[in-house]
Amino acid sequence: MSDLIETQLAVQARWVLPSATGGVLDRHVVLVDEGRIVDIVDAATARERYRAREWVDRPHHVLIPGLVNAHTHAAMTLMRGFADDLPLMEWLNDHIWPAEKNHADEIFVRAGTTLAVAEMLRGGVTCFNDMYFHPQAAARVAMQTGIRACIGMIVFDMPTHWASTGAECIEKGLRVHDECRHAENVTTAFAPHAPYTVEDATFTRVRTLADELDVPVHMHVHETAHEIEMSLDRYGVRPLERLASLGLATPRLMAVHMTQLMDEEIRFCAAEGINVVHCPESNMKLASGFCPLAALVEAEINVAIGTDGAASNNDLDMFGETRTAALLAKGVAGSPTAVPAHTAFEMATMGGARALGLDADIGTLEPGKYADMVAVDLSAPRTTPVHDIVTQLVYSTEAGQVSDTWVAGKALLKSGSLTTIDEDAALSEAAKWRGVLA
Amino acid sequence: MSDLIETQLAVQARWVLPSATGGVLDRHVVLVDEGRIVDIVDAATARERYRAREWVDRPHHVLIPGLVNAHTHAAMTLMRGFADDLPLMEWLNDHIWPAEKNHADEIFVRAGTTLAVAEMLRGGVTCFNDMYFHPQAAARVAMQTGIRACIGMIVFDMPTHWASTGAECIEKGLRVHDECRHAENVTTAFAPHAPYTVEDATFTRVRTLADELDVPVHMHVHETAHEIEMSLDRYGVRPLERLASLGLATPRLMAVHMTQLMDEEIRFCAAEGINVVHCPESNMKLASGFCPLAALVEAEINVAIGTDGAASNNDLDMFGETRTAALLAKGVAGSPTAVPAHTAFEMATMGGARALGLDADIGTLEPGKYADMVAVDLSAPRTTPVHDIVTQLVYSTEAGQVSDTWVAGKALLKSGSLTTIDEDAALSEAAKWRGVLA
Repeated sequence: MSDLIETQLAVQARWVLPSATGGVLDRHVVLVDEGRIVDIVDAATARERYRAREWVDRPHHVLIPGLVNAHTHAAMTLMRGFADDLPLMEWLNDHIWPAEKNHADEIFVRAGTTLAVAEMLRGGVTCFNDMYFHPQAAARVAMQTGIRACIGMIVFDMPTHWASTGAECIEKGLRVHDECRHAENVTTAFAPHAPYTVEDATFTRVRTLADELDVPVHMHVHETAHEIEMSLDRYGVRPLERLASLGLATPRLMAVHMTQLMDEEIRFCAAEGINVVHCPESNMKLASGFCPLAALVEAEINVAIGTDGAASNNDLDMFGETRTAALLAKGVAGSPTAVPAHTAFEMATMGGARALGLDADIGTLEPGKYADMVAVDLSAPRTTPVHDIVTQLVYSTEAGQVSDTWVAGKALLKSGSLTTIDEDAALSEAAKWRGVLA
Repeated sequence: MSDLIETQLAVQARWVLPSATGGVLDRHVVLVDEGRIVDIVDAATARERYRAREWVDRPHHVLIPGLVNAHTHAAMTLMRGFADDLPLMEWLNDHIWPAEKNHADEIFVRAGTTLAVAEMLRGGVTCFNDMYFHPQAAARVAMQTGIRACIGMIVFDMPTHWASTGAECIEKGLRVHDECRHAENVTTAFAPHAPYTVEDATFTRVRTLADELDVPVHMHVHETAHEIEMSLDRYGVRPLERLASLGLATPRLMAVHMTQLMDEEIRFCAAEGINVVHCPESNMKLASGFCPLAALVEAEINVAIGTDGAASNNDLDMFGETRTAALLAKGVAGSPTAVPAHTAFEMATMGGARALGLDADIGTLEPGKYADMVAVDLSAPRTTPVHDIVTQLVYSTEAGQVSDTWVAGKALLKSGSLTTIDEDAALSEAAKWRGVLA
């Protein structure tokens, strides 16, 4: 028995789904050591070869790669349901922006991001890509709770609660980058808000620094028809063309929303290796337009999925968002074979990993990658019988069926309980914002 | 103390939402006797006036009217995920119809409907409108489990597992109607499958009998563009015009799907009092087209919401379906103010009740109506903070947050446990169909 290999953790499940496209393994075990997957083998082999310090058995569950929420404004959970069903400019000008101006300080960001992380861990999200004010506060929540995060160094060329100018945003953002440099679970991206809120000179500086630091550029792009019109009026070109002329149309770019796309722009995105982040529920709720998802897939563009912030969704549920992406794509394309469940699930996992430049480390369950993984209980009526694991996950599963969420082999949600967040305190803190924002 | 009025049940909740549009009551109590609501008062008044044999306190919950699933094929839960992401005719001809031909007998319907009822009760559905073969089996499941159901007397003018001709369908359907006559929780409707599967003579007979029995007529109408073309080819008119000429365009009609509608047809539906049942997720998944929901609301047509069967959705989750209805309507209308959350919630409750002719008995919480009601726990991160109860229910709540479901004052789901279904047995029975259908 001295030949047994000792490992940190073994998770045995009824099914293991290493990736969206690689098929399902029956009654297998994922072995984890030092936060990374070391092996995936059948249960008998696992017991022959390994001695795990912790052995977890999930007999009705499927173990899947953690979901990557590729676009959110986590702290905006505090504005969930605060102002719904309004015209876009009234929503922003009369509700969201005044509330942010008055309230979105570090305390707000800390409380809102903590609530968001609780919701995301409960819903099987192991990594989120954030864009909000006071990113150092969000980064600290990620470090303390253990969830993986890409923290946006937000950039606006207008005064906000965070900074007065684009230059100040960059300067403060770089300090956040430095603070995160040694955190294994936190990376950064530049997050210029949108083409209409950032000037050319600032974009040029962002481009140079993103190359130097080797980080992604996370931005709202072509969200609405109005954005296109504003760009044509001011710059004489559509936003994507302007970004290209500024050197930003590269594989670093995570272009969020992209509801307004001409065929030649889709070809351009494919040629330049631009990543698209699709947020279908936000696009519908704000009536921004429909992203041509099936055409993006056809063009072999890397697509990730994001929930957007809770003010415009109103949840951070990647199961729901992935389902909506798969369903809406069929309606928009007029074809029931557009964006099959397997493709949508790939977007929610590897698509996000690739967009963040983390695909060597996360996005699938395979030896060498971080053990970012999620156990989903499929024994509920809504997921019975199990004819096909992946369509069950995409079309029938709800977030509440997640029982366990591990990031780098650490259980942050364990049999339904959060291990690194005082959930009652987080809920009480969040509830205090009821009635305050208005 | 002898002045206290004795009642069967009192349910106290953090919030009570009697209807979609009437505002929220803080810390109120719903008093129930003999299955019906007798009063709704604040907690202090309730204790002064009433002595309930059972007093239920739900301190983090909102108590809402039960959701009405206005279109489903309950037994098809057994085909959940059995054949996804296929072209429509391949899906029907090569998968669904052969499987039904070989397997959809009474045993199948009983097992599938039981699974469906378990899922629906867990998701706050207190009433469903069903259309499937062997309706007597579905009716018996409803009677035994206590859920409210409108059982469709299904009619096809082609051989099926249920009958060989339309006339035989009607004859057998009438026997089901007789069997249900004395069940307080079960009503019936005629359910001619669709304009393209039922002949004129059969429709005429259905119309006469529906009038005589005073029951609704539940039918797929204008589901796809192909259906319209077939009708134009064969009858020279669109299906709705044909139904009108046969006397079926009346307030009895529950027209399901209605994705293909010209402006004049919308005006016609409004004028004739036709009810539309909207199934947005099925319409997207099968790429049937987009129902013009905002225009129907504008025309003041009564709209209900249905999940459709689990083969084309793939769940019976009315929270998800109502959210999708509210979101998709905005995208289709190009307006973020289209179909606000309150309107969508009204569709999911009173809209369904009206369509079924049950609006005097269910659809809202008010004295005199059945105590068909649902407690939803809003203390989860995904529904915190609570700025607006109704937008929280529509945009953020998942079915799994339902803790209790009462039908006619009887708790069929009680603190998360089903009281009238042996859930383990139902799940085991359903799981047997894995691998059998193919």
